[in-house]
Amino acid sequence: MQYLKPAILVCLLTILAYTAFSQPTLTVNQQRIEQRIFELAKFGKDSIGRGYRVAYTKGDIEGRNWFIDLLKKAGLEVSIDYAGNIVGKRKGKNPLLQPIAFGSHIDMVPDGGNYDGCFGSISALEIIEVLNEKSIVTEHPLEVIIFSNEEGGTVGSKAMSSGLSKERLQQISQSGLTIAEGISRIGGNPENIDDNIQKNGAFKAFLELHIEQGGILAKENTEIGVVEGIVGIKRWEVTVAGFANHAGSTSMDMRQDALLAASKFVVAVNEVITSVKGSQVGTVGKLEVEPGAYNVIPGKVVLGLEIRDLSAEKIDQLFTEIKKRAAAIAAISKTTISFELQANPSKPALTDKTLQQLINKTATALGFSTKFMQSGAGHDAQQMALLAPAGMIFIPSAGGISHSPKEFSTAADMANGANVLLQTILTLDKEQAASK
Amino acid sequence: MQYLKPAILVCLLTILAYTAFSQPTLTVNQQRIEQRIFELAKFGKDSIGRGYRVAYTKGDIEGRNWFIDLLKKAGLEVSIDYAGNIVGKRKGKNPLLQPIAFGSHIDMVPDGGNYDGCFGSISALEIIEVLNEKSIVTEHPLEVIIFSNEEGGTVGSKAMSSGLSKERLQQISQSGLTIAEGISRIGGNPENIDDNIQKNGAFKAFLELHIEQGGILAKENTEIGVVEGIVGIKRWEVTVAGFANHAGSTSMDMRQDALLAASKFVVAVNEVITSVKGSQVGTVGKLEVEPGAYNVIPGKVVLGLEIRDLSAEKIDQLFTEIKKRAAAIAAISKTTISFELQANPSKPALTDKTLQQLINKTATALGFSTKFMQSGAGHDAQQMALLAPAGMIFIPSAGGISHSPKEFSTAADMANGANVLLQTILTLDKEQAASK
Repeated sequence: MQYLKPAILVCLLTILAYTAFSQPTLTVNQQRIEQRIFELAKFGKDSIGRGYRVAYTKGDIEGRNWFIDLLKKAGLEVSIDYAGNIVGKRKGKNPLLQPIAFGSHIDMVPDGGNYDGCFGSISALEIIEVLNEKSIVTEHPLEVIIFSNEEGGTVGSKAMSSGLSKERLQQISQSGLTIAEGISRIGGNPENIDDNIQKNGAFKAFLELHIEQGGILAKENTEIGVVEGIVGIKRWEVTVAGFANHAGSTSMDMRQDALLAASKFVVAVNEVITSVKGSQVGTVGKLEVEPGAYNVIPGKVVLGLEIRDLSAEKIDQLFTEIKKRAAAIAAISKTTISFELQANPSKPALTDKTLQQLINKTATALGFSTKFMQSGAGHDAQQMALLAPAGMIFIPSAGGISHSPKEFSTAADMANGANVLLQTILTLDKEQAASK
Repeated sequence: MQYLKPAILVCLLTILAYTAFSQPTLTVNQQRIEQRIFELAKFGKDSIGRGYRVAYTKGDIEGRNWFIDLLKKAGLEVSIDYAGNIVGKRKGKNPLLQPIAFGSHIDMVPDGGNYDGCFGSISALEIIEVLNEKSIVTEHPLEVIIFSNEEGGTVGSKAMSSGLSKERLQQISQSGLTIAEGISRIGGNPENIDDNIQKNGAFKAFLELHIEQGGILAKENTEIGVVEGIVGIKRWEVTVAGFANHAGSTSMDMRQDALLAASKFVVAVNEVITSVKGSQVGTVGKLEVEPGAYNVIPGKVVLGLEIRDLSAEKIDQLFTEIKKRAAAIAAISKTTISFELQANPSKPALTDKTLQQLINKTATALGFSTKFMQSGAGHDAQQMALLAPAGMIFIPSAGGISHSPKEFSTAADMANGANVLLQTILTLDKEQAASK
């Protein structure tokens, strides 16, 4: 019996420990997330039934009202800031701590998809509801932010971080309204837009959950993407000037064919971009030919070049190489090739390294495969990174299709991502509270 | 003295011979030709003063009336045929002989040039006037023909040779009128259009004088081009189908970029066309990108391919090679490339070998440098070649520019060409009359 007591003690401790660790982890409601994706998809249709929840339009406003209602029902204190962003606040135990913010957007491009920003927005709400259901109050205050007009160029998040210029406010948005008119329409106040800028450090962290729009996770069967940063973008309008002439009577050696030169340029752009390692992308997405007839050798081509990368220096290096190739093409084809840098290039925005590690650790602990990756698309998180440590979590999206009605993520993948976000917030809340 | 007589005889004979051969050759009036080029240029202007003598429009009709008046003043018996062609007849000594016909057209493309068909038309009139001035009556009847709507696809000459279908008559011309309406407007009769077709052999020969639209003569400093034929033309609409996707988030290796594939295709077309010897030309003159935005990888490109050559077989061989290259490009770029042959391909039309030799001999005898060459552009002569032995004479045009207000030929070059036409007609008239 003397030997029995410690054995029983070990047994008891083992059972206790097992009970403690096997206690069901707090998880989101997978069905509820998917259900709300479908519900939100009902708001905003164009005349032929395609998705049209373009910022500031009727569909956007209806979707926002539906969302605001749910945030209120979840007990959040909801307000609309001067830029029209929807902000839902939940008190923490310690009011002196800065809030942990998370969210995304619910506006869409014309004929867009139902997952894009909606998934991150609906998951943010879901996290609040799960915490409510388990009566969990975090140390930090929590803020759910649904940014206005993300698709028009992260307008709402820009108004919270670096601000919007008067010129920007007067630009026409996809809705047909100026941005200022649009902001007024959704309850913001463009007059006070400068007061909308938050101080650096206003948030403990900002976290955004989003579908991965490149198809890499789906292709590689990876469950969670840990976003290292959002690429910078530079765009140039490229003009190739040759000489229009009769396509029948001008011999091949006497031509100054702007389209032939432009075609060599498009191929060269692809060669330069793929000639070095890395995730950089380079695209010629638009190209117009003048005069554009079967029987006339093209005299002029205007095309759009775009380069994206996490490193601004790399973008510039690649462009320098492309310019060299262009000069050689121009010389051999008796054309000129000129470049005009387009306004508002967007700088690369890196996410916080500590948050990257935390997201990765959390996802791994939950049993998910992970991949560190960049975001080739712009997101509100890139603006919020100017104010606070920012983190982004990607989930797979079928075939990498986005901005299309074919956009699709499974309910399981969505729940995985939302669970990673939930646990990351909870860990962040505890770690940071403890380190205070 | 015994030796003197034969010497004197030789001298006398030499003087006689010299006198006979040095007798001033019949020549055209260079100034009158250029003056009329300038006069005709006054008819047909658009609202901002650019040349607009488009077939069937006000300017075309005014130009025609001016021309008809001059033909009548030159003593020709002028009529308008069912297709609206202006036909001016001059009797020959032998009414049993078939007429020698020559001429061109005076309609122009919008914002076109003043030399194109005008030069050949005005020179035809000039020849009649020179003959009148010298009271020369040819053995054969002569016919000056000013074809209607050449720029719309050799409409008038087609109506004289292979005919116009009912569908063709109902097509909208550049003027906005249907071809039938246009023909009625200039005094033709579309109801009787089938009766406008002439019998094969209706003419002894047809000769057309025209500016060379390729710039070869100007570049090589050659005075006269002897046209071997007018190239055939085949056109295809080429569709490159890829997959539109986000230009930021789609990695380079996952793209199905329709514009990248189309660019490789344009380069391949150029390589195939220039890979074999000859005067063949191949052009991609139009290209449209969908959706066409900086940030979207092109999902679809539709482009226009055209191949021209004097040999229909060569056109087909080149196209077969281009299709092979397209298949390889499609495979490597994960796109599809499909071809749709466009309606009404035009067959190559060879000029008459005997006439080629006669033109060359005549030009050489007049002291001009000559070059045998093809016409890459279409001309009324290619239709007339179906009815009669046809010949074409080219003169240099500055820089090969055509269908442009910058079109220009010197008065001296025009006179050279008209003199070659005049002497060719006279030799043809005598030779053929003698061989009767």
